[in-house]
Amino acid sequence: MCVTLKPDVLDPQGRAIQRACATLGHEAVRDVRQGKLFEIELATSDRVAAERLVRELCDKLLANTVIENWKIERIET
Amino acid sequence: MCVTLKPDVLDPQGRAIQRACATLGHEAVRDVRQGKLFEIELATSDRVAAERLVRELCDKLLANTVIENWKIERIET
Amino acid sequence: MCVTLKPDVLDPQGRAIQRACATLGHEAVRDVRQGKLFEIELATSDRVAAERLVRELCDKLLANTVIENWKIERIET
Amino acid sequence: MCVTLKPDVLDPQGRAIQRACATLGHEAVRDVRQGKLFEIELATSDRVAAERLVRELCDKLLANTVIENWKIERIET
Repeated sequence: MCVTLKPDVLDPQGRAIQRACATLGHEAVRDVRQGKLFEIELATSDRVAAERLVRELCDKLLANTVIENWKIERIET
Repeated sequence: MCVTLKPDVLDPQGRAIQRACATLGHEAVRDVRQGKLFEIELATSDRVAAERLVRELCDKLLANTVIENWKIERIET
Repeated sequence: MCVTLKPDVLDPQGRAIQRACATLGHEAVRDVRQGKLFEIELATSDRVAAERLVRELCDKLLANTVIENWKIERIET
Repeated sequence: MCVTLKPDVLDPQGRAIQRACATLGHEAVRDVRQGKLFEIELATSDRVAAERLVRELCDKLLANTVIENWKIERIET
């Protein structure tokens, strides 16, 4: 799953990357936001249980929901 | 796009999260790997050009391809 | 220089590391906070100018001063 | 304590910040390397025990010593 800063929270490192793109001639890069990706391997093949567990981990362990959003990108079985 | 450590590169922080899951009673969490997510906004609606540009950015600017893999997760227009 | 989350901003990854320490038998670890370190090499040997430049970089480029504090840890010449 | 990539490991994000500094007119910034900082609070006032514990955490939990170096920056009591 992915954890990203909320849209209204300034991301200075993403901005730095956008500026660096410009110095390389890539003016088409309008904005860059940097987040975190967590690849989680579970000992279950039950998609519903997997999603419930990951949701709980996100809320309790992986994200600061005051400043960050999280999203389950993909569940593979 | 996402940047992740290659599978043979130890990820101590992912391991720490896996252990923390266990202390919370989530023994089903077998492994956690932590990576980086970059959300890139481009001034183009041409999917082919967008993908070419992002590929170039990944190789030249965003990933250390000796220890990291990268993947374009999704292109939205 | 170092960038750290402000004390009142929850740091879930630091918490996860603290929990992982406990699973390894290190109950003496009360709290862990994770921050970023930037090692900056400057083309100047003037300490005053160096410090002024780094302060400017911190405020403008490296830290989100709404949620983060920064500190110049050491200047070496 | 601080965890930094070994000098011979390319740091693309540090490079991006160096480039971004240049776009802001700060050509004096020769190089930037990005690392991690961990602030660890211990339930002990014994400096020797504290240092021994932190050394163990670094080697076992916080750093990938194949690609990273670590250093205890400061012990406060």
